[in-house]
Amino acid sequence: MNLSEMSRDELLSFRDEALSRYNDFKAQGLSLNMSRGNPCKEQLELSVSMLDVFDDGDFVSENGIDVRNYGMLDGIPEAKKLFSDMIGVDSDEVIIFGNSSLNAMFWTVQTAFNKGVLGSTPWGKLDKVKFLCPVPGYDRHFKVTEFFGIEMINIPMTAEGPDMDLIEELVAKDESIKGIWCVPQYSNPDGISYSDDTVRRFASLKPAAKDFRIFWDNAYCIHHLTDSPKYILNILDEAKKVGNENIVYIFGSTSKITFPGAGVAVMGASRENVEALKKFLGISIISYDKMNQLRHVKFFESFEHMKDHMKKHMAIIAPKFRLVCDKLSKEIAPLGIGEWTDPEGGYFVSFNALSGCAKRIVKLCSEAGVTLTGAGATFPYGVDPDDRNIRLAPTYPPIEDLEKAMDLFTICVKLASAEKLLGEK
Amino acid sequence: MNLSEMSRDELLSFRDEALSRYNDFKAQGLSLNMSRGNPCKEQLELSVSMLDVFDDGDFVSENGIDVRNYGMLDGIPEAKKLFSDMIGVDSDEVIIFGNSSLNAMFWTVQTAFNKGVLGSTPWGKLDKVKFLCPVPGYDRHFKVTEFFGIEMINIPMTAEGPDMDLIEELVAKDESIKGIWCVPQYSNPDGISYSDDTVRRFASLKPAAKDFRIFWDNAYCIHHLTDSPKYILNILDEAKKVGNENIVYIFGSTSKITFPGAGVAVMGASRENVEALKKFLGISIISYDKMNQLRHVKFFESFEHMKDHMKKHMAIIAPKFRLVCDKLSKEIAPLGIGEWTDPEGGYFVSFNALSGCAKRIVKLCSEAGVTLTGAGATFPYGVDPDDRNIRLAPTYPPIEDLEKAMDLFTICVKLASAEKLLGEK
Repeated sequence: MNLSEMSRDELLSFRDEALSRYNDFKAQGLSLNMSRGNPCKEQLELSVSMLDVFDDGDFVSENGIDVRNYGMLDGIPEAKKLFSDMIGVDSDEVIIFGNSSLNAMFWTVQTAFNKGVLGSTPWGKLDKVKFLCPVPGYDRHFKVTEFFGIEMINIPMTAEGPDMDLIEELVAKDESIKGIWCVPQYSNPDGISYSDDTVRRFASLKPAAKDFRIFWDNAYCIHHLTDSPKYILNILDEAKKVGNENIVYIFGSTSKITFPGAGVAVMGASRENVEALKKFLGISIISYDKMNQLRHVKFFESFEHMKDHMKKHMAIIAPKFRLVCDKLSKEIAPLGIGEWTDPEGGYFVSFNALSGCAKRIVKLCSEAGVTLTGAGATFPYGVDPDDRNIRLAPTYPPIEDLEKAMDLFTICVKLASAEKLLGEK
Repeated sequence: MNLSEMSRDELLSFRDEALSRYNDFKAQGLSLNMSRGNPCKEQLELSVSMLDVFDDGDFVSENGIDVRNYGMLDGIPEAKKLFSDMIGVDSDEVIIFGNSSLNAMFWTVQTAFNKGVLGSTPWGKLDKVKFLCPVPGYDRHFKVTEFFGIEMINIPMTAEGPDMDLIEELVAKDESIKGIWCVPQYSNPDGISYSDDTVRRFASLKPAAKDFRIFWDNAYCIHHLTDSPKYILNILDEAKKVGNENIVYIFGSTSKITFPGAGVAVMGASRENVEALKKFLGISIISYDKMNQLRHVKFFESFEHMKDHMKKHMAIIAPKFRLVCDKLSKEIAPLGIGEWTDPEGGYFVSFNALSGCAKRIVKLCSEAGVTLTGAGATFPYGVDPDDRNIRLAPTYPPIEDLEKAMDLFTICVKLASAEKLLGEK
C-alpha cells in the first residue's frame, strides 16, 4: 500500500513498527561505511600481480627513456597509446597525469584561472565566472569550482543526460559561463549514460564564451555492470565533425580499474588544447610517476585486456548492485516513498526519497552505525533544494554487511517517510 | 699566467690554440647532457629492490588502512614518521604528498593565492605580490613565482647563505613581500649551506606581511658528498624558540634518494600551518599514492637506514664532483677566468665565468654536443645580470663522458674568455 494513501492511524502504526525495527538495529552496534565509491578488497586483489611486472629488470620506455628518472612530462609513449585508447582519442591528444584525475581537473581549472584558455582573459581576472552543474552530480567536482569562487548553476538531469535545452540557452546568452561538469557514462550518482543526441548537442555547443569548456569526466568509461554494455558516443569525434573540437576536455583514470590511490590519470583533448596546456604543465611538476605508467602498460598490454580485466570487477560488484536494487524494489517500491536508478555501470545507486527526507534518513542511518554520503553532497554548495537525493555506494562492504546496511536503510526510509507524512519532522 | 695579464699577441695565440682544440672536439660529434641534476643509472639501481617489498602481500598501514584504496589524504602514519624525521619536524607537522616536492610548493603558493595564509587576504586579490630570490638559485622555483605573476627580487648569496641584512631590511618595510625561496643545505646551484647565524636570522624574521613565508626547500638534506657531513640548524626548532613557528614551510623529497619520477615528497610546518593547509588539500586530490609511501617505508625501515643508503649514492657521485673540480682547478684556476664552489653535497657545481661570457660558453658547448643548463636559468626571469653563472650537473653522465664534457667545457671557457678580453664577442 502506498504510504501516502494510509490513514493517520495506519501511518502511526507503520511508524511505530519501523521505529521498533530501527531500535533493534541500533542495538546491534553496526559500523559500516557506504559513503564513498571505494572498491572492495577483492577488487584490489585483481591488480596485485601488476606489482611484479618489473621483475624483468626492464625500466626502459619504448622511446629509450629510463622511466625511473626525470623526464617525459606528458607521459611515456606506450601509456599514451593505452590510455588514449581508453578515453577514445589519438595518442597525441593526451596528457598522462599522476594518480588522480580530480587533480588533473583541478589543475586544468586552475590553469584557466591563471592563464586563460587558448589566450583568453584569465578567469581569475573576470568579475564573475560560472559553471553549469548537472544535478545530482559528483560532490568533488563542485568542491573544485567552489574553491575557485565559481558560481554554480544547477542543471536538471533527464534520462538522456542533462537538460540540453536549458544548457544551450544559458551558454548562448551568458559569456560568464565558462564550463560544465559532466560524467557522461554511468553518471555519478544517477548512473545515466548520455544519449547520442545529448552527446551531439554537447559537441555542437556554441557558447558565447570562446573559452567555455566541457569537463567530460569519463570516470566510468569501461566500468560496466552488464554483459552487453552500451558505449556513449565519442564526443571529441563528434566535435571534430562540426569543427568544434576545442570545446571539450576529457578525463579518465584507472582508480577503479587498478588501485584507487595508485592508478594513472589521463586527460584527452584536441591537439590545440593539449599543446596549450602542456606549456604550463612543467611549471608545477617535473614529471609524473612514469614507473607506475609503465607498470600499468606492462600489466594490461592492450586496451582489450583492460576491458577483460573490468569483467572481473563486474563479477565482484554486480551482485552488490543487484542486492541494493532488489531490496529497494521489495521494501520501498510498494510504498511509493522513493525512486532510484538501476544502473548498468558506474559506482552508485541514486536514491530519491520523499522531499525533505534525505537528511533525516542519512542521520538515522548514521546513528545506527551506517555511514552514507552526506545528504546534499550531490548538489553544489551541499544544498539539495528538495532534500531528497541520497547516493548509495554498494561496492566496498562485503555482501553480508551490505545486506544489513540495506535492511537498515530501507527501515530508515520508511521511518523518515512516515514521520514526514505525519508532519512530525 | 692570468689571462687578463696577457698581451694582445699572447691572447690571440691563446685564443687560436683554444679554437683549434674546440674544433677538434666539435669534429668528434659528442652528444652529452649535463643540463639537469639527474641521478645516473647506477644510482637508480640502488633502490630497485624497493619494488619487491610487497611480495609479502601486506598492504595494510599500521593504522589498519589498506594503502591500495582511497583515504589517508595527508599520508600514512609510518610515512609521516619516516619523512618527518628526514626533514626534522614532528610527525603531526607533516603532509605527505605525491612524487614531487615542486608540485607541493606550487600547490602551497597557489593555495595562498586563492585562500590566503591563515586567514590573510588571498594573494591573488592583492595588487602586488613579491618574493625574494637568492641568486643564483633554482630555476624551477622562479618559474613557479613567475607563473603566478609574482615580482621577484634578486638577493645576493654569500658564503653563509643569502644576504640577511638586505632580507631583514626589505621584509620589514614592504608588506607586499610574501615569501622567499631557499635551498638551505647545499644550495642549488652554489652548494652553500646556511650558517647557524643565517638560519637563526631566518627563524627570527619579523616581516611586515603576517602572511610572509620562507619556502625552505631542503631538497638535499641528506645528500652529502663527504664522510663528515655538516647539518644545518633546524629552522622550525629555532623559530619555535622565538615564537615564530609559522614563518616557515619546509619541503623535501626522495627524488634523489630513490627514484626521481617515483619518489615521495613531504612538507613540514607548524601544526597551525599544517592544519590550515590540510583544509584545502582534499579539494584537489582524494589521496596521494600511499602504496608508494608504504613501499618507501618498508624499504628504508628507519631514517638511519636512509642515511646509510645515501652513502651508496655518495660513493657513485662523489668521484664525478671531484673530477669536475679537479679539471677546473687545473685548467681554469691558473688563468683567473672563473670561480666555482667545491660543494660538500647537493647536485651541482656553480661556475662563474668572466662577466658576459656565460651565454657564449653554453652556446659553444652546445654546438659541440654538450648540453648545459641554459645560461641565466639560475636567475629570475632567466636573466643573469652579469651573464656569468653556469650550473654544472655532474651526476648523470658516466665518468668517461663527464671527463670529455669537462675537457670541452674548460676549452669553451678559455675560448670565450679570450674572445671577451680581445673584445671580439
